Amino acid sequence: MKKYNIAIVGATGAVGQTMLKILEERDFPVNRVLPLASARSNGISVSFRGEKLKVLEATPASFNGIDIALFSAGKTVSKELAPEAIKRGAIVIDNSNAFRMSPEVPLVVPEVNPEDIKKHKGIISNPNCSTIQMVVALKPLHDVARIKRVVVSTYQAVSGTGLEAIEELMEQLKMVLNGEDPKARVYPYPIALNVLPHIDVFDDTGYSQEELKMVNETKKIMNDDNLAITATTVRVPVMNGHSEAVNIETEEKLTAEMAREILSKASGVKVVDDPKSKRYPLPGDVTGSDEVFVGRIREDFSVRNGLNLWIVADNLRKGAALNTIQIAEKMVENAMI
Amino acid sequence: MKKYNIAIVGATGAVGQTMLKILEERDFPVNRVLPLASARSNGISVSFRGEKLKVLEATPASFNGIDIALFSAGKTVSKELAPEAIKRGAIVIDNSNAFRMSPEVPLVVPEVNPEDIKKHKGIISNPNCSTIQMVVALKPLHDVARIKRVVVSTYQAVSGTGLEAIEELMEQLKMVLNGEDPKARVYPYPIALNVLPHIDVFDDTGYSQEELKMVNETKKIMNDDNLAITATTVRVPVMNGHSEAVNIETEEKLTAEMAREILSKASGVKVVDDPKSKRYPLPGDVTGSDEVFVGRIREDFSVRNGLNLWIVADNLRKGAALNTIQIAEKMVENAMI
Repeated sequence: MKKYNIAIVGATGAVGQTMLKILEERDFPVNRVLPLASARSNGISVSFRGEKLKVLEATPASFNGIDIALFSAGKTVSKELAPEAIKRGAIVIDNSNAFRMSPEVPLVVPEVNPEDIKKHKGIISNPNCSTIQMVVALKPLHDVARIKRVVVSTYQAVSGTGLEAIEELMEQLKMVLNGEDPKARVYPYPIALNVLPHIDVFDDTGYSQEELKMVNETKKIMNDDNLAITATTVRVPVMNGHSEAVNIETEEKLTAEMAREILSKASGVKVVDDPKSKRYPLPGDVTGSDEVFVGRIREDFSVRNGLNLWIVADNLRKGAALNTIQIAEKMVENAMI
Repeated sequence: MKKYNIAIVGATGAVGQTMLKILEERDFPVNRVLPLASARSNGISVSFRGEKLKVLEATPASFNGIDIALFSAGKTVSKELAPEAIKRGAIVIDNSNAFRMSPEVPLVVPEVNPEDIKKHKGIISNPNCSTIQMVVALKPLHDVARIKRVVVSTYQAVSGTGLEAIEELMEQLKMVLNGEDPKARVYPYPIALNVLPHIDVFDDTGYSQEELKMVNETKKIMNDDNLAITATTVRVPVMNGHSEAVNIETEEKLTAEMAREILSKASGVKVVDDPKSKRYPLPGDVTGSDEVFVGRIREDFSVRNGLNLWIVADNLRKGAALNTIQIAEKMVENAMI
């Protein structure tokens, strides 16, 4: 079996570290892993299969001989270096939002639109974390009953922002317990004992980019421009694991029981739904799990064909690193690389 | 001016303590305050206008000579003692959900349906905290554009559960910082660094009582059975201050600008809405404030006449103690007592 040379751009970040772990766990056919980051990470090592690998500065020449370049170092780095990687023959799978809405770039969640991968011209984009877990749960319902409208409110963990946000929350909790006022650096206001209805920047309509990503990316991944969506995205003081309260309206009637049955057979989904026995998905439980967990499945009696769902996933895994590697796996599986 | 003898049942709880503070702050015409609680609170004192008042055990005889009895000690106590208070000539304003949906009991938010007070037969119910802040913000919009449907997701603070939940969150945060696993007593799972889609008990349709309260109480307070509502209620690791992501559909078109203007003139509402300048309501900011704060006002492009709102309030004040005392104030103002 062919083995691949893999570059990880942003190897010292929260997602990059998770990528290394997942490549190892899933026994991806790796020949060589090349961890790359900015010059700031010079001298840092990361571990892979028991070995210490020195992190190198990402430059255009880094991609010589690379088969697959996994990018997770932000938009600017992707814009600058992804074309360099492609020029040198690598396939780029990009976690940033640099290319997601570009018409030539497929935006892929393997459980939802694996067939879009083959349209790629060198770059495949990985969707936003909050979008990925939602579409994994919605696609099987859409296939059966056609979803017309989605209203989603999110409860997003700080790990989605990165390691510095995880540290900030821990530091702020210490300050609170010491009776001090928590100080904010990463977020505009303290996140400890607070919730912030502010993820990414705002536009003139009052939406945040995170909210618009959920709207636009969902339509693109589901290949359905008529799917109506609105979103409110909120940061909560949780270390890892995004939660979403999702309300949908469908063309055809779906009872809660039908939805539970469809989802329990769906790829990548795990139904945890017995609230009377205190069984529902919790962000505190999902770290390290690959599945998208769905519970609190209820009919919404306020509309003809409505359902409420509570969707939780490990945003660093399925929301980012795992989905990226699943895209690479699909390409290997279908001899596209 | 007439002055009143006021009993507070549940005087040692989070809401009871806030009631004492608010009676003082607002200079309510008090002749005498009688703090009552269960036998467990024997020997405890509370302070009012600089005096220490001994908390007495609530018994039927406690209400002799009482004009207004403010109840906040749970459903069982209200069911047992409210009729005794009425029998002795007191007006009962009850914070529990013992009588809220009973047709003879008005359910009142003074900014929304003050006229319902006069239908009382001894008891007036104070709505659920999450309902109160929502209807204060929705009523002015309903009056202008007629709201047809509401989809709400909540981010509710632990103070809504009571003092023991505030202590539990603090203890769990200490455990987390000491590297221990947080232990849960009050909630079924740790609330520190977690969110729990579980408030009150669940019924067979999969809804929690908290969610059904938001649905049923809103219709009753707004005097509109056709108002369609669905809710997902979630506990978050915030000490005090409930937040709500509220999506509405209206009969008439409301632009975000129109909604902002209507709300900025509405009684009990404060608009904080300039997200580009990082101005939006935060639960961390509202403790001690009387207003319901509304921000993130945006048109929802997924439906013909849709709006998104972010509604935050001090759940112990406007969500409970303040609303109760505002009901009493209305009765005094209109010589109904």
